[in-house]
Amino acid sequence: MPVAEVARRMLDTYPREFSLDRDLLVRCIEACSDCAESCTQCADDCLAEEGVQELTTCIRLNLDCADICTATGRVVSRRTGYDAEVTSAVLRACIAACGKCADECEGHAAHGMEHCRVCAEECRRCEQACQELLAAS
Amino acid sequence: MPVAEVARRMLDTYPREFSLDRDLLVRCIEACSDCAESCTQCADDCLAEEGVQELTTCIRLNLDCADICTATGRVVSRRTGYDAEVTSAVLRACIAACGKCADECEGHAAHGMEHCRVCAEECRRCEQACQELLAAS
Amino acid sequence: MPVAEVARRMLDTYPREFSLDRDLLVRCIEACSDCAESCTQCADDCLAEEGVQELTTCIRLNLDCADICTATGRVVSRRTGYDAEVTSAVLRACIAACGKCADECEGHAAHGMEHCRVCAEECRRCEQACQELLAAS
Amino acid sequence: MPVAEVARRMLDTYPREFSLDRDLLVRCIEACSDCAESCTQCADDCLAEEGVQELTTCIRLNLDCADICTATGRVVSRRTGYDAEVTSAVLRACIAACGKCADECEGHAAHGMEHCRVCAEECRRCEQACQELLAAS
Repeated sequence: MPVAEVARRMLDTYPREFSLDRDLLVRCIEACSDCAESCTQCADDCLAEEGVQELTTCIRLNLDCADICTATGRVVSRRTGYDAEVTSAVLRACIAACGKCADECEGHAAHGMEHCRVCAEECRRCEQACQELLAAS
Repeated sequence: MPVAEVARRMLDTYPREFSLDRDLLVRCIEACSDCAESCTQCADDCLAEEGVQELTTCIRLNLDCADICTATGRVVSRRTGYDAEVTSAVLRACIAACGKCADECEGHAAHGMEHCRVCAEECRRCEQACQELLAAS
Repeated sequence: MPVAEVARRMLDTYPREFSLDRDLLVRCIEACSDCAESCTQCADDCLAEEGVQELTTCIRLNLDCADICTATGRVVSRRTGYDAEVTSAVLRACIAACGKCADECEGHAAHGMEHCRVCAEECRRCEQACQELLAAS
Repeated sequence: MPVAEVARRMLDTYPREFSLDRDLLVRCIEACSDCAESCTQCADDCLAEEGVQELTTCIRLNLDCADICTATGRVVSRRTGYDAEVTSAVLRACIAACGKCADECEGHAAHGMEHCRVCAEECRRCEQACQELLAAS
């Protein structure tokens, strides 16, 4: 089942009210899950390339981005004791990580790295979903 | 985009051959993502319940299950330097965590906890996806 | 062995030059490890309290803080492909999370919660170590 | 402050009784923290080596080991709702990951990779701390 569907069902059964927009939240949770996955795999794909030596910055940004997306996805998934300042700060970190990783991956995609092309798309999607949730937080 | 779609695209662009069944892999990666999400949210839903005191074992199993699913999803997402022993051991840990968390959530679902009902379904799905990948590993 | 000692030995064997101050780095890595640990345990200690219902905001901030400290510790541990913008953004998120968690824990410590007192100290130490590394980044 | 000291203080303020041996627990928590750190840094050190192409299996095992140690350290840090089966399964996964990563790192240490030598020592220490806690669980 798509993570978005899981997240929506779980939000629908949350026992209290909450003020954040449900669609923005679900989109952000899904984007963090997707981007953590694409970055984890892109790092591994890069490791498997013959020219891995040219890809070490990409691998590093992938690893950072995966770690930050995982943490961000967890923070925005929690409603109890919501803190706007912590949420905003972690969303900003995620936007920075996704943006830098997308920049790097796009450069390699232009030279034919297909996994970097897919990964860059996920990073851009996550960057935007975090920006939209940040604007509403 | 569903995580399964992201995982499949990234596997399709992996630069080397690999032997594990692609569909089993994708299903396990997706199930780990879904279950990590449902457990993170179920712990938070339980915290928001008036009867949180009766739900502390559930919260604890949710937290363990989320942590183990996240680690398992990462390990099975990597193809380079595949190690059957490490993969099997982490899949077994995930099966144990999902099974225990499902047992606990099913008990609360029977008493009307809707988030526990949804979460138990995800735990069972993940338990099974890990069992199928373990059988093929 | 203390994490600080492990981190120092590993930095000493890093095969390239790097510009960040080694002592600030080691202190930040250790503080993130310590704070992730104290927050993970404080959430669990709170769950075990009879008055858990009064501690749900504390548990939530503990969980966020542990997740963000873990991600931050990993990001600052990596030297290859160093990106000042990503590093700064995640340090800011960690400072926000540690600060808010410390505020909350200090309130409970004033009412006799010993685990919150210890946890607040670790959060403050981590907040400061991240601020010092941010100033140097 | 060493993680072991943080863990001990937090265990000392746990509000209920628990049966597991405190020293074994503290040693396992510290070893998981240390090993997660050394593996995160060893992966990054390997990325920075000129001969990174010979080190891709090492990087992969480092990443798996770091993820599994982080999850294991969190699970064993929780006392509330203790489940022997989940704990044992994750300890076994950690023993497998540490053992394999140590084997790989020892091979590179024999050829002069100093970060692999330090990392192998941490992996062996963690492998043993998990075995001792598993025997007592």
